[in-house]
Amino acid sequence: MNGLMQHWPLTTTTILRHAMREHGGREVVTRSIEGEIRRYGYADLHRRALQVVHALQASGVVRGERVATLAWNTDRHMEIWYGVMGFGAICHTINPRLPAEQLAYIINHAQDRILFIEAAFLPLLAPLRARLPSLREVIVLTDPGEACVLSPAPVLYEHWLTRGGGGHGAWPDLPEETAATLCYTSGTTGHPKGALYSHRSNVLHALAINTADGFGLRTRDVVLPIVPMFHANAWGTIFAAPMAGAKLVLPGCRLDGASLWELMESERVSVTAAVPTVWLGLLRYLDETGRRLPHLQRVLIGGSAVPRVMVERFERDFGVEVTHAWGMTEMSPVGTFGSSKFADPEKDEEAYMSRKLKQGRVPYTVELKVVDESGEELPRDGHSQGEVKVRGPAIVGRYFGEANEATDAQGWFATGDVATMDSQGYLQIVDRSKDVIKSGGEWISSIALENTAMGHPQVAEAAVIAVPHEKWGERPLLLVVAKDPGLEPQSVLEYVQERVAKWWVPDRVQLVSEIPHSGTGKIRKDLLRQRYGGPVGKCAGDLTGE
Amino acid sequence: MNGLMQHWPLTTTTILRHAMREHGGREVVTRSIEGEIRRYGYADLHRRALQVVHALQASGVVRGERVATLAWNTDRHMEIWYGVMGFGAICHTINPRLPAEQLAYIINHAQDRILFIEAAFLPLLAPLRARLPSLREVIVLTDPGEACVLSPAPVLYEHWLTRGGGGHGAWPDLPEETAATLCYTSGTTGHPKGALYSHRSNVLHALAINTADGFGLRTRDVVLPIVPMFHANAWGTIFAAPMAGAKLVLPGCRLDGASLWELMESERVSVTAAVPTVWLGLLRYLDETGRRLPHLQRVLIGGSAVPRVMVERFERDFGVEVTHAWGMTEMSPVGTFGSSKFADPEKDEEAYMSRKLKQGRVPYTVELKVVDESGEELPRDGHSQGEVKVRGPAIVGRYFGEANEATDAQGWFATGDVATMDSQGYLQIVDRSKDVIKSGGEWISSIALENTAMGHPQVAEAAVIAVPHEKWGERPLLLVVAKDPGLEPQSVLEYVQERVAKWWVPDRVQLVSEIPHSGTGKIRKDLLRQRYGGPVGKCAGDLTGE
Repeated sequence: MNGLMQHWPLTTTTILRHAMREHGGREVVTRSIEGEIRRYGYADLHRRALQVVHALQASGVVRGERVATLAWNTDRHMEIWYGVMGFGAICHTINPRLPAEQLAYIINHAQDRILFIEAAFLPLLAPLRARLPSLREVIVLTDPGEACVLSPAPVLYEHWLTRGGGGHGAWPDLPEETAATLCYTSGTTGHPKGALYSHRSNVLHALAINTADGFGLRTRDVVLPIVPMFHANAWGTIFAAPMAGAKLVLPGCRLDGASLWELMESERVSVTAAVPTVWLGLLRYLDETGRRLPHLQRVLIGGSAVPRVMVERFERDFGVEVTHAWGMTEMSPVGTFGSSKFADPEKDEEAYMSRKLKQGRVPYTVELKVVDESGEELPRDGHSQGEVKVRGPAIVGRYFGEANEATDAQGWFATGDVATMDSQGYLQIVDRSKDVIKSGGEWISSIALENTAMGHPQVAEAAVIAVPHEKWGERPLLLVVAKDPGLEPQSVLEYVQERVAKWWVPDRVQLVSEIPHSGTGKIRKDLLRQRYGGPVGKCAGDLTGE
Repeated sequence: MNGLMQHWPLTTTTILRHAMREHGGREVVTRSIEGEIRRYGYADLHRRALQVVHALQASGVVRGERVATLAWNTDRHMEIWYGVMGFGAICHTINPRLPAEQLAYIINHAQDRILFIEAAFLPLLAPLRARLPSLREVIVLTDPGEACVLSPAPVLYEHWLTRGGGGHGAWPDLPEETAATLCYTSGTTGHPKGALYSHRSNVLHALAINTADGFGLRTRDVVLPIVPMFHANAWGTIFAAPMAGAKLVLPGCRLDGASLWELMESERVSVTAAVPTVWLGLLRYLDETGRRLPHLQRVLIGGSAVPRVMVERFERDFGVEVTHAWGMTEMSPVGTFGSSKFADPEKDEEAYMSRKLKQGRVPYTVELKVVDESGEELPRDGHSQGEVKVRGPAIVGRYFGEANEATDAQGWFATGDVATMDSQGYLQIVDRSKDVIKSGGEWISSIALENTAMGHPQVAEAAVIAVPHEKWGERPLLLVVAKDPGLEPQSVLEYVQERVAKWWVPDRVQLVSEIPHSGTGKIRKDLLRQRYGGPVGKCAGDLTGE
């Protein structure tokens, strides 16, 4: 027997409708690509998103087709986002930092019909254009200028928007399982794979984010999502902020410390979210200028492990609470929140930092287990290491265009992350499973070794990969980029020796001129392994051409 | 095209599983009916709820059948609640304060198979037992003592629980639309009607409760739901607390000020929820003893409008934040939360109180409009009055056993409440639509008149009903119960005259010996109208026999 509650599908349009009706005047503020500040309310956003619906219809887009964006976090990007989903098409957010070949691959794989693009990205598109047969139309979000590199010249967004008439009329009714958004993983191994989110998964993810022990957004909050909409859904903030009626501040393309500080100050931002490298830029700016963060209350950090010094600086020097989070594109993306379970002990700084630096604990909507190589769940003892598997309503079941499930027989998705879990349920990521070094039956974290080596004053960047070893199976090789030419590999080795367990010490340190990165800033260890991954002592020489 | 996220049904069992895995040692503390304190963790609750599943199976219960409870808020009640739902049967929580005829009506209407009952309620059941043919078994939750009034003597819960073997094995897989819980409205007009909640609606309601602008429960919270599980699902706290991993404190049958204070003190309760009358008892106890509330942070008040003096006492005298909420059985039950939208102005006490005394604003999961008699939405101007209509995933679509939808053609449920809505989206309930007095085209709130009359020092209770009037259509009649025999109706009339608009002043004040109440404590205005509702000047005399 079924319950007799109302049939009320969890569509992203209901989020926008809620924001329009209950928080219609609450502002969405954008630093436009041209530089000036644009501002309007959620009611305006709703009206223009409905114009997008009509314009898509007039452009011949059919439900279920993919509509792509190569765009920064702006009001226009958000109108397109809600409009495309609300129409019943799929909003495919593309990372402009991807290499050209991957851009072409995913546009063709997704069979994108329309592409919305910032003018600044047109030079990325121009050389690929002829190889993108699915693409029927390119709409440019900003003024393409006199010398447009694309032929035929793209349509201007504000013109395109009028194509379907006004912003009146009804939104289509959609089942909540309808596909809504598509995001490809960065693909450091093999081709990028697409996570195809549904309206339902986006809504449930946003509800989980807004729980008090999650990000806990409130109407009174002013939220600045610096993490891009093309990078794992801006961590769900683009859904969660209007759901809470929070004011949104969208930074456009200027993510340097000065620009971000200025926006935080003028708009009185209370909550913001970005990866650690962005915060390095902001903290440097604060050091240089002596400026403070009087309005900011919380900073959400994810994407990679937060360094201890960053937590200390935000919390101690600026009085801003750090919430660490972990997740991935396949998880919509949030998997854990670093919120405290109980009131923090006032005095025990080490216990506090130890907990803060872990990746956090799961909300209700995420089931998580750490398993050994036979798939058995490991004890939650804070040191047993194994792969993280997850289940939940906003976690990928199958990749877009793939025939096979991405999950095991019990429905668990293997994240590829190696971690420990403590008795309180806090996860600590050790490494990616393909990067961890399996030496004599024990595991060595390449990330931990890299972070240690980075502490050496003359090391600019470090990467650790496994190399085959006759006796131990694998041993770590440490590759370093020097800050200045005088760096001796031996001094790095000694520095590391003093700071890690003896059996973790790399067999060798090798200087390289650069370390290759993916479009999302991750180290391309696959390329490093190709170049340097021979048995120790038989390295293939310098890395070039990346 | 559908999204490709995992199929992860929103069942209440996933809440319990989350609490078991992530918060297994977090306590559920019960003041047992016998008086002593029992405590265990969510892992124990999970294990015993799974025993309930097996025992139901062994007792021949079939999925979709109704299993009833006549019970206080205790650990056992909670085990049954999760066990029955998780089994796929429907947990029908019955209000023991209902008149015997209504008890018999709803048990027969629901076709309850098994009834779990506190020993103290056996005398309610005994005279009805022969008229309840659907009921196959009665399980008593507490020691029935020597002189059990029921024949055959009921089975003891702890014995029954062992019937299906241990607490191991798997929970059944259930679709999220499966019916989970059943709660009848108190039925002051006509027969009681049953709201049949689904697993999905319970889960979504709990997610909405746990948003930061909702009740916002956190793991660190210690939650005392005084509002009974048989009264509108204890406002969802029995789902929301384990979802957040909060410690739960269940008060059993002792709801007096002294018992509640003792529990709050010993268990360090941080959040608690109850109707205003319970708080009157607690505040009186605090006055008499000079005791304080050092641990309590927030008090959730619903069920009826909170008096201003209650907000002032909690917030000013005890430093406890009041969150007012509004809802009804048909809404699972929460419709609005009284959380502030923005930081409260520090100085403007009147604006602050005016907002606090309103019923609050909707979370994302509730759509709400106030409509005029033609069904058109009224302006959100803070004074236009009309009926409240609601839509959402946890709002009744059809009553149990009814053929017709409970909603209009656009899916809206008419709440029967008359309210205003202000420009910020705060609802203020004026009256029940059947109780409001329509006088000369204007509406007079019976509740507002009653509250005014209650301020007279010699008035023990007041009720206002409409009586027909030749010229004005309807006029208010004020019925009062005197605290002492010397009360003059004229003095009440003068007291009210000084405090309300002239055209609101009742045409007459009549002394009565008592005012009848429903099982949930509401004034039975239907009975008052039968007795006194003739045209003014032709009253039918005293109220007797209730």
